[in-house]
Amino acid sequence: MAGGSEAPPLGAILAEFVAGHPRRGWDDAVESAAQRSFMNWLGCAIGAARHPALDATLAALRMLDPAPQGSVPGRNDRVDMASAALLTGMASRALDFDDLHPRTTIHAAGPVAAAVLAVGEHLGSSGRELLDALVLGVDVACRIGSTMGPEHAERGWDITGSTGMLGAAAGCARMLALDAAQTAMALDIAASQPTGLREQAGTMTEPFHVGSAARAGMMSALLAKHDFTASPRALEGPHGFVPVVSERRGWQEATEALGRRFEIAANLLKPFACAVALHPAIDAAVQLRARGVVAAQVQQLQLDVHPAALALEGDAHPRHAAAARASLAHAAAVGLLFGRAGPAEFDDAAVHRPDVAALREAVRATADPALADTAARATAVLADGRREAVHVAHAIGSAARPLDDDALRAKFASLVEPVLGPSRCALLSDACVRLASMEDLRELASLCRPSSSR
Amino acid sequence: MAGGSEAPPLGAILAEFVAGHPRRGWDDAVESAAQRSFMNWLGCAIGAARHPALDATLAALRMLDPAPQGSVPGRNDRVDMASAALLTGMASRALDFDDLHPRTTIHAAGPVAAAVLAVGEHLGSSGRELLDALVLGVDVACRIGSTMGPEHAERGWDITGSTGMLGAAAGCARMLALDAAQTAMALDIAASQPTGLREQAGTMTEPFHVGSAARAGMMSALLAKHDFTASPRALEGPHGFVPVVSERRGWQEATEALGRRFEIAANLLKPFACAVALHPAIDAAVQLRARGVVAAQVQQLQLDVHPAALALEGDAHPRHAAAARASLAHAAAVGLLFGRAGPAEFDDAAVHRPDVAALREAVRATADPALADTAARATAVLADGRREAVHVAHAIGSAARPLDDDALRAKFASLVEPVLGPSRCALLSDACVRLASMEDLRELASLCRPSSSR
Repeated sequence: MAGGSEAPPLGAILAEFVAGHPRRGWDDAVESAAQRSFMNWLGCAIGAARHPALDATLAALRMLDPAPQGSVPGRNDRVDMASAALLTGMASRALDFDDLHPRTTIHAAGPVAAAVLAVGEHLGSSGRELLDALVLGVDVACRIGSTMGPEHAERGWDITGSTGMLGAAAGCARMLALDAAQTAMALDIAASQPTGLREQAGTMTEPFHVGSAARAGMMSALLAKHDFTASPRALEGPHGFVPVVSERRGWQEATEALGRRFEIAANLLKPFACAVALHPAIDAAVQLRARGVVAAQVQQLQLDVHPAALALEGDAHPRHAAAARASLAHAAAVGLLFGRAGPAEFDDAAVHRPDVAALREAVRATADPALADTAARATAVLADGRREAVHVAHAIGSAARPLDDDALRAKFASLVEPVLGPSRCALLSDACVRLASMEDLRELASLCRPSSSR
Repeated sequence: MAGGSEAPPLGAILAEFVAGHPRRGWDDAVESAAQRSFMNWLGCAIGAARHPALDATLAALRMLDPAPQGSVPGRNDRVDMASAALLTGMASRALDFDDLHPRTTIHAAGPVAAAVLAVGEHLGSSGRELLDALVLGVDVACRIGSTMGPEHAERGWDITGSTGMLGAAAGCARMLALDAAQTAMALDIAASQPTGLREQAGTMTEPFHVGSAARAGMMSALLAKHDFTASPRALEGPHGFVPVVSERRGWQEATEALGRRFEIAANLLKPFACAVALHPAIDAAVQLRARGVVAAQVQQLQLDVHPAALALEGDAHPRHAAAARASLAHAAAVGLLFGRAGPAEFDDAAVHRPDVAALREAVRATADPALADTAARATAVLADGRREAVHVAHAIGSAARPLDDDALRAKFASLVEPVLGPSRCALLSDACVRLASMEDLRELASLCRPSSSR
């Protein structure tokens, strides 16, 4: 297989960058993106703290009798820090409400944040150290994802799990203050451990990919700290990670503007708890509702969407939550009915509501290749013959219209209040904003536990 | 990507087989292969118990403060059972002395035995249960490996780690007495977690692949036991395991003669601690020595070998143990000098011995495509002009000349005596032979601990 010989020493270059980068060392836009990505990630993790996937995983982990080293945000359980990374990474992805690095389609914060928070809580690291590790770890995962291009995911890899272990390894190496050689080793050990198949979409194993990547990356950093060895060409050699899992090797994209452009600045926070391809249609449906369209009077809901919105594996008649999160008809229906599309609008109860089912039946969707993937048109045809139309050029949450800070706080509260209560949620929200100056991450971890709030 | 639609429901078929197969339920040849594969595997694991890769991994695992659930054969350390599987799987592969399922090139016992022994010790299972789980787990891994063919490994996957998690999941599901549906789930969860790149050859990460596969398979079974979910098409669906990691999908090979032909019967136990491609030349060199050829008098050692013996990444001038284990010149040199080629003949000290280096320089190797991959010719040209020639048609350890029971006991003793001492080694050797009637695997585990022997 070609591609190995002309490759740069990727592990060494990225490790030098991660180990040698100054504290912070980026502009306010990057810093804000990091703080917002973390807050969004933590909200998603806490919102899914009682997800059945976490209960099942905890039951399995209990068979190993784990040490009470680390916490799982939103729960009182304590487990060893590697298991904490696994559980938290999984939680943050379980509601499909997290984030997206659009060029690579990596849900970027998940594997890195889960791993560095677990290590940081255990070590009593500072918020500054966490943010630095998050920015650098996300950079590594997204840059390696960029070398592979869309073919990697099209082949069937769940790219968040198949690059996340590299981001988590980089982030944990930074938290552990590994030197450049050890950091390279951490990346090279992690290279052997991609987790994730797109075939798992809609099952508990899909979010497991994120947790598994977090755990694998952390363990790779711990091994590297203790003089474990791997090939210095594990990422880019002829039988190394990128050549094995990808036909494309855009090596220059891994190092382009390294230390000047930070990938986390491009990370998008999701306003709706479903596949991003459905967001423009939801936005349009929400806007129809805001203009006074009442669902009960809608005879037909015509949607013109980018072809990707119709290419998902969901269908017009979902029978459970996982299918609904990939169903254009369901997504548009709940947008019009409720004016929002959070986790509750995609759960099994929502799927089976008669009003939602009736509105799904009224959807007529057409793919329009001329539309951007952030655009949609929606036309409601009412019982009295009137028509109301909305054109969304850039959906809320896209790069042109990112979630603003108020919307992020509202999203965070919608996820965290049901688990921790409003006063604890407000404290935690403030803690996220002042994370860069927090001296000890155990303060944050403590705020994430339900018991200490009662 | 094509290939998903016509695929059989692989997970369901194999799970039904694993969960429903009667105890033993095979002929004596299969039973003997299972007992011998296990004994060989255990010897290799104990022989590498003090390998630096294990020390490094234990140091990393200690940071998680693991519960003292399970043991690591040849050590007194106790760790949680998932970590025990990781460490033991790694140990069994660390000396490159283990076994090989020739059609798939899977080192078949490693991931399965490590996982089922760790579960079995924790549960106090019987030796019968272990042997059943080993046979069935090896069958699953080798059958799925067979569907993919050589291209999968040629692409760069270390196939032992990239199929081992499936074998370990199957074996642990059997140990845990999971039903067919849960067993299918275990396989489907494991499908997302291949570990292993050939680029890691010669580093600690290479044996880590085996341990990681053992651990991943065990955890997949524990998750399945607790109602975790995965796609029922995770193995064979369009974005499932086989289509994602392989161009070839020989589905029929996964199920051909299922329950009648058992893959463990084809498993070969290695007589020499290096790549199998080098074994015919070593065998020939050992035979030259038996005929009285003295290394110091050899001016040239001419070798005719199958091309695969020259295609390894080692070279004629290895500078460390890992390179020596892939070096034809080194392998033949130690065979002629010492009459054996165990771990000691491939360690750093052996690499740097002047007599070994001199004999390596005397090797002249020629690839002969007409030779079988189990064949070699060796001719020693002596200082006095005499020539001595040997032709090996089937190397020791190949299917035509498998290691006999005495040779296996001798190999086991060579590995175990230095760690546990001769009397404990003899007890353990006997225990392996009567494994099928052992009531509680904790007896075996106890015999594997150095401390209780003193």
